[in-house]
Amino acid sequence: MSIQKLEKQVIIKNDHFIEQAEQLKPKLFETDVEPISIVEVKRDTNIIHGWKTEFVAPASSLAKYEYGKNDSFILDFGNHQVGYFSFHIRPTGSPPDAPLKLKLTFGEMPVEMAEPFENYEGWLSSSWLQEETIFVDVLPATIRLPRRYSFRYVKFEVIDTSKKYLVAFENIQLKTVTSANINDVQTISHQDAELQKIDEVSIKTFTDCMQDVFEDGPKRDRRLWLGDLRLQALANYETFKTNDLVKRCLYLFAGVPDERGMVPANVFVAPKLIADDTYLFDYSLFFTAALHDYYLSSKDYETLVELWPTAYRQVELALQRLDEHHIVKDAANWWSFIDWQEGLNKQTPSQAVLIYTMKQAIRLAEVLRVPEKNSLEVRLEEIVEAAKTYLWDEEQKFFISGPERQVSWASQIWMVLAGVLNKEENKQLMKRLLEEKPVVAIATPYMYHHLVEALIVSGEKERAIAEMKSYWGRMILDGADTFWELYDPENKDFSPYGSYLINSYCHAWSCTPTYLIRKYDL
Amino acid sequence: MSIQKLEKQVIIKNDHFIEQAEQLKPKLFETDVEPISIVEVKRDTNIIHGWKTEFVAPASSLAKYEYGKNDSFILDFGNHQVGYFSFHIRPTGSPPDAPLKLKLTFGEMPVEMAEPFENYEGWLSSSWLQEETIFVDVLPATIRLPRRYSFRYVKFEVIDTSKKYLVAFENIQLKTVTSANINDVQTISHQDAELQKIDEVSIKTFTDCMQDVFEDGPKRDRRLWLGDLRLQALANYETFKTNDLVKRCLYLFAGVPDERGMVPANVFVAPKLIADDTYLFDYSLFFTAALHDYYLSSKDYETLVELWPTAYRQVELALQRLDEHHIVKDAANWWSFIDWQEGLNKQTPSQAVLIYTMKQAIRLAEVLRVPEKNSLEVRLEEIVEAAKTYLWDEEQKFFISGPERQVSWASQIWMVLAGVLNKEENKQLMKRLLEEKPVVAIATPYMYHHLVEALIVSGEKERAIAEMKSYWGRMILDGADTFWELYDPENKDFSPYGSYLINSYCHAWSCTPTYLIRKYDL
Repeated sequence: MSIQKLEKQVIIKNDHFIEQAEQLKPKLFETDVEPISIVEVKRDTNIIHGWKTEFVAPASSLAKYEYGKNDSFILDFGNHQVGYFSFHIRPTGSPPDAPLKLKLTFGEMPVEMAEPFENYEGWLSSSWLQEETIFVDVLPATIRLPRRYSFRYVKFEVIDTSKKYLVAFENIQLKTVTSANINDVQTISHQDAELQKIDEVSIKTFTDCMQDVFEDGPKRDRRLWLGDLRLQALANYETFKTNDLVKRCLYLFAGVPDERGMVPANVFVAPKLIADDTYLFDYSLFFTAALHDYYLSSKDYETLVELWPTAYRQVELALQRLDEHHIVKDAANWWSFIDWQEGLNKQTPSQAVLIYTMKQAIRLAEVLRVPEKNSLEVRLEEIVEAAKTYLWDEEQKFFISGPERQVSWASQIWMVLAGVLNKEENKQLMKRLLEEKPVVAIATPYMYHHLVEALIVSGEKERAIAEMKSYWGRMILDGADTFWELYDPENKDFSPYGSYLINSYCHAWSCTPTYLIRKYDL
Repeated sequence: MSIQKLEKQVIIKNDHFIEQAEQLKPKLFETDVEPISIVEVKRDTNIIHGWKTEFVAPASSLAKYEYGKNDSFILDFGNHQVGYFSFHIRPTGSPPDAPLKLKLTFGEMPVEMAEPFENYEGWLSSSWLQEETIFVDVLPATIRLPRRYSFRYVKFEVIDTSKKYLVAFENIQLKTVTSANINDVQTISHQDAELQKIDEVSIKTFTDCMQDVFEDGPKRDRRLWLGDLRLQALANYETFKTNDLVKRCLYLFAGVPDERGMVPANVFVAPKLIADDTYLFDYSLFFTAALHDYYLSSKDYETLVELWPTAYRQVELALQRLDEHHIVKDAANWWSFIDWQEGLNKQTPSQAVLIYTMKQAIRLAEVLRVPEKNSLEVRLEEIVEAAKTYLWDEEQKFFISGPERQVSWASQIWMVLAGVLNKEENKQLMKRLLEEKPVVAIATPYMYHHLVEALIVSGEKERAIAEMKSYWGRMILDGADTFWELYDPENKDFSPYGSYLINSYCHAWSCTPTYLIRKYDL
């Protein structure tokens, strides 16, 4: 798995934009939550990852148990949580004559309670696996762990006390944090219970990712990616309507372009705003898309005026990537995300993303009455024409991508969303896609979102609902409290990182069903 | 290895005494210390534990190295230190996109840097082994570890960063703490360089154990034991003369006797004053001895008056342990410490400790002009007589102990210190002891102290010096920066706890050579 790493990254900071973003920093809502039950994990090959939890006792009974060397227990908070963990330790027996050594493991899924993190050998940093080993010199003690965790389960392992004392645990508490005001969202009462449940889990997912920026995952990466932001913002307009947080995130990206004016694929906000040295063709364009969606929802003309140059610049830079036939140049050292699908060629879906975004840019240019509108329209026509000429395989009746003429789901889906063909052609293309099922399929909920939306815009609402249920509905059946970063119903152990332990099980880009259900009245 | 654990412990708190102790809480002196060098550990079977360190680079060059996953290095502070550790972490490369997972291991000895703590299987709690695994979410960061460590070496192991960044370490600092004011001690210039060095290492040991109480070991147990206190106080009168700290410790013990009035063998001072549920025949008597020594040194009559009842009570309780022949009753479930020597019978050395203490109690009673003096004198005569009658083996010309008539070093040494025989007989006994070398020998510097002092009081100063050199001098040759809790020149891997990893390598009861050298003008 290759990653981007720039030797030399030049950032042209825009202090005014950064200051705007700072002003919009949201306050976090805190809620005290307690565990529900003590559980144990059991092997069960019928369950995802092979592990299920079983009820042992109510969590309220915990304080009466005493634990010594090598004893352990698991607490279940009953739902996914993001927050700060604290508990009280009471020694029993003789006065404690040695420190307590205690290990805590936090997990979003039962497998994280069952399989030792020591065995993890994926290529993403093992430091994402949520655990702490602490030494407590003085007992009794109230422990407040300083880090934020994302979890449903927490395992306590008493590594050592001494021969003279045991410990009991009391007042296990979590202070959850989110910038989402749950009172701001209108609940729906869907007549379809499954869609109702999918909507609820979407909102929970979205809530837990909504921190002082829109995070991609509260367990792993915990940062602001443009691709996730675009989808979170769409979900936001249909639910919390916290438009200021979207605005903040847009200003963060606009605050740290590189010397060409390109916005990074993601930014860090601590210890200060830092642009990651990852630049993605599609993600940079999504700045324009996200500004478009923000303006449509907020009608915030002032922000549109201020951020338009940044948005337009992303399109300009993308256009520089076109070859003489107006086709996005493919290359080994070129970066566009599209999906985690193994072997996916990014050329054609990227061309589609460009078309999709240019249409939005033209709409914004229209609002702004700026002259760029005309040149964009001229280029758009060329590019759409080129796509039809060079990327459409009339024989297969599929869009093809790259030198190997790859037929992927991503290419068809994005070309439909880009509106390159007419509605009837789109409908036929989507039908063909679902029937013929090309091998280069879909790896993430992120791409699944685009599949469902492509079905909707091509008039296939029922198929869209069916696909949503067979994916997000099945995820719920497989135990999702919040929607997962990655889910392949045919290969439930799938991870692009080398281990499902490191997957994020609450991930922003999976929260879009609430948008799709509410926006399109599914 | 059995330990004391009381089902029911009744403490009769004396709030006035506890308040007195609180008032005497010393201020700690802080000094900033930096590491000297980067070292590595190498196998060398000629070295104690089989490990030596080798210089790699000056510590000042550390900041220029960059470390990634699985990289590690060891810093050497050049001498034993006790304090609070801090350092700065600077990321290099791309912006850090994952937490840093870092393991720190602190060691007093090279072996602690070389042998993994995971392999420790001793019976004392593994929680004493000094290590931390920390996750740093935001970089750069200045880390200030909240716990106090006792060490010379610290190993940094970068468990994981990510593929995108490395880390460099800067501003490695230790804030050492001690209540010893090093300016208060008069340095000596001994013509014998070996004794000079032994004196210096003693004082360093004593300094590092001198915290807000006299701790036994700053790495392991970190608490106030009566047996250690008595020896630390003796060292103190010849060096720092911080008599108020001795006074504080006496009041702490006097503050928490049990329902019979017995003081515990040790106390904890955090989160508040707590008497351990360990009671030892000899250690309780050492309260009386320690008060005796304190009064002789300080002439603090007020404290003597206030604490005399507690001191006298310890003798009374010890006397209750005598059988009809005035001999300390031996039993399997009876506790007297004396030494860690495997299989040592405690009866005769305990009888000697009683005699030793009674003589001190009589001296105090004389100062106080209290009537207990007479009864103590009567009892003392009976007990000394009984010792000669029942515990002296005329044939072997050794004191014997227990039903098996065990001839141990401890019995002879303590009987000499108790002055049961006359000076010439003592001299002969000590001579015989060193010549015949009974199997039940000496396991600790604590008992070695008593051997040397017994040689001195029986007029064998040269032998005393020779023994001191062959023990403490050899410890220095074996690499002691501070004197160790345990040292057997014939079996350098010795530990009564099942592993030398858990031994304390800076231990108060080993600091007495400075007392012996200075007090007896060796």
